[in-house]
Amino acid sequence: MTLETVLTRLDADLDTAVQRLLSFLRIPSISTDPAYADDCQKAADWLVDDLTALGVTAKAHETPGHPMVVGHVGDGAPHLLFYGHYDVQPVDPLNLWDRDPFDPALEDTAQGKVIRGRGTADDKGQLMTFVEACRAWKAVHGTWPCKITFLFEGEEESGSPSLVPFLQAHKDTLSKPDLALICDTGLFNRDTPAITTMLRGLLGEEITITGPNKDLHSGLFGGAAINPARVLARIIARLHDDTGRITVPGFYEGVPELAPQIKAQWQALGFDEQAFLAEVGLSQLAGEQGYSALEQLWARPTCEVNGITSGYTGDGFKTVLPSKASAKISFRLVGTQDPYAIRKSFRQMVQDMLPPDCTATFEDHGAGPASVMSTENPAFDAARHALSAEWPNKAAFLGGGGSIPIAGYFKDILGLDSMLIGFGLDDDQIHSPNEKYDLRSFHKGMRSWARVLDAVT
Amino acid sequence: MTLETVLTRLDADLDTAVQRLLSFLRIPSISTDPAYADDCQKAADWLVDDLTALGVTAKAHETPGHPMVVGHVGDGAPHLLFYGHYDVQPVDPLNLWDRDPFDPALEDTAQGKVIRGRGTADDKGQLMTFVEACRAWKAVHGTWPCKITFLFEGEEESGSPSLVPFLQAHKDTLSKPDLALICDTGLFNRDTPAITTMLRGLLGEEITITGPNKDLHSGLFGGAAINPARVLARIIARLHDDTGRITVPGFYEGVPELAPQIKAQWQALGFDEQAFLAEVGLSQLAGEQGYSALEQLWARPTCEVNGITSGYTGDGFKTVLPSKASAKISFRLVGTQDPYAIRKSFRQMVQDMLPPDCTATFEDHGAGPASVMSTENPAFDAARHALSAEWPNKAAFLGGGGSIPIAGYFKDILGLDSMLIGFGLDDDQIHSPNEKYDLRSFHKGMRSWARVLDAVT
Repeated sequence: MTLETVLTRLDADLDTAVQRLLSFLRIPSISTDPAYADDCQKAADWLVDDLTALGVTAKAHETPGHPMVVGHVGDGAPHLLFYGHYDVQPVDPLNLWDRDPFDPALEDTAQGKVIRGRGTADDKGQLMTFVEACRAWKAVHGTWPCKITFLFEGEEESGSPSLVPFLQAHKDTLSKPDLALICDTGLFNRDTPAITTMLRGLLGEEITITGPNKDLHSGLFGGAAINPARVLARIIARLHDDTGRITVPGFYEGVPELAPQIKAQWQALGFDEQAFLAEVGLSQLAGEQGYSALEQLWARPTCEVNGITSGYTGDGFKTVLPSKASAKISFRLVGTQDPYAIRKSFRQMVQDMLPPDCTATFEDHGAGPASVMSTENPAFDAARHALSAEWPNKAAFLGGGGSIPIAGYFKDILGLDSMLIGFGLDDDQIHSPNEKYDLRSFHKGMRSWARVLDAVT
Repeated sequence: MTLETVLTRLDADLDTAVQRLLSFLRIPSISTDPAYADDCQKAADWLVDDLTALGVTAKAHETPGHPMVVGHVGDGAPHLLFYGHYDVQPVDPLNLWDRDPFDPALEDTAQGKVIRGRGTADDKGQLMTFVEACRAWKAVHGTWPCKITFLFEGEEESGSPSLVPFLQAHKDTLSKPDLALICDTGLFNRDTPAITTMLRGLLGEEITITGPNKDLHSGLFGGAAINPARVLARIIARLHDDTGRITVPGFYEGVPELAPQIKAQWQALGFDEQAFLAEVGLSQLAGEQGYSALEQLWARPTCEVNGITSGYTGDGFKTVLPSKASAKISFRLVGTQDPYAIRKSFRQMVQDMLPPDCTATFEDHGAGPASVMSTENPAFDAARHALSAEWPNKAAFLGGGGSIPIAGYFKDILGLDSMLIGFGLDDDQIHSPNEKYDLRSFHKGMRSWARVLDAVT
């Protein structure tokens, strides 16, 4: 059985793979800080060299920002596009790190060995699980499992400004694959692998209500003049009904009921709602009634207030009757909800709720629909079985509460579905001091990819 | 007719009185800025000298802050205590002044001559109207109209920190008067004098709602975790019913219906609601239904939001689900509303509205009841007639929307009712650049006090 040979090779090569990863991690490729631009170039070159050594035709393409590494190799169906990012988050505050973030090492912990350092879990360690699986495959088979395109970005942690233009400019070559693989997500828990198949979309709106033409004295005007802070509070209070449903007209158009088989998978996960809530000091689900926590987080849309400000907010007290009140409000979207239609309806609803003498202005803070993968592609079920074979528990198709724009870009620009598989854990401290990646994640991650490659080809 | 002689004397002495005021105004007695402490002492000394020249036994009493000038003179009933303040507001931004704020002068304007400079209307020019009336009275009669105690404060513009302790320490001497006269308010309009007889009280509360134990990611938790910004909005939205009445239980206990004769006086003022609202960009009264603007402002209690803050309020957008949301809320109180009972009821109401997993904390920002003068004291009607004789229109008993703590202190500590008579106008720019006091206010102000002294003695 050649898969077993590949897995055995990965086991035998683990120490060397860790050493390779450590050398990659030592490059401080912080994309958001211009002082590290050379290091970003170095990290891109490191990847080009590593891919080239594997026989991949690889190149670091210049962009207005950091390079985009693209590599092509192999032939045969399916044609897979693998995405990861080589840039990392800044490391401040440095004094909270227990070691130099760019002098990574294996450490023993109560949970087993971890690789400690910036970028271990996000995303260098994760992307290398795929590269190592390819390396072992090539060593064992002498060939590649199928046609593979590698795409490594260097600006994921700084908003990906060059990504969309790059995808658009290289649409002809990059749109050929059948499926994208993205390795930047996590396991469901330590023993349960996951394929993320639903990511919520996001609509960001900022609303400013203006009443009087200047801040007034609440003694001299209070009781007679309209107070926009009160108006805003009333508007926000009316965005949800008493069951937690959102009242924006037409909001639920395109919100699908969860497919029974997905619902069954989620129920089987044994998600501990109480522990999830207790972790952040809560005890009760506060969302839409009639849905489980995972449904509320992954399959139901939301409307949240992310910020409010009006009047005097400093220390002490000022008896001001404010001229303006504003709120940042975001909607998480699912299914085929149309962010532009919802924006329009939301704005109209606010206008309709305004009392006399008040005006509302709106600022657009982005609009993106949900990403829902077509799991009918047989690669999804194949990958699920492959992951289930590697880990103690069966793999599940999960939703994601947040938004991963890259999957949307692949869909919109390249017409590609994405299969998001990753091996991170909630305690990996990504974006924080003392980031780590479990050695088990790294090891079983590369074994998982070998199994997935075997299963989908 | 000796009153006429006093008035004639005031007319003849006007230029000299203006010169005296100008010399007083040249002392930059900014109480809030320690750099001007010597000037505050100089202004106090100037008053002591001027009173002493009139035969008053006057002294600048030391306090932990700026001196309190107290003078005693005359005999006979009633014993009047006259209050004014010699300190002034800071002058920033200096570049918006058309002249040196402490080089005051008479200026011609479209509205007639004005005295321009810091402190002209607030309060040096106003307090001197009373002193000049006394000076002329003394010059004509050789005696004083009655027993008079002068009390001039030097910290009114910086929160009066020494006033309450001083009143308490000098309770024995200062509580003898029958009535306090306070000259720090305004005319109703250019031709209509006013006695302010009702001042609203003030209760300040800051409420902070806490939900999750830290800020959360709205993608990872939104839809399942309670959002305190939404909770706060719902609480604020429920503080008023749809008719503008405040819903705090027991809130309206002690709110009197307006006496018919006062209501009639206010109606007779011909207050231009539309102009009042238009000035601040509004067109409709937004207060408690069924009450006129003046009733809403002077005779009805309010609940206003003075500030709200929660989550991310900077530029751009952050998809944070905030841990906390807070609001500064103030209540203006009338009649015999009990601020402490209302605070308790408000806090209980908020607690009762809290959903599970939320807590509320409260910060006390002061509580003072309304000041309602006992206008049955015949001095009020006498003064009203005296003022009506001086000005084109009949004088009215007005309310005041804001709070003037001094009247409350006189009532609480000294047991004194206060008669608030002043000659300021809305366009006097007090606390702002280019402060002025109409020469007509100064002139007719001193004539008004002569008439009031004549009428009440």
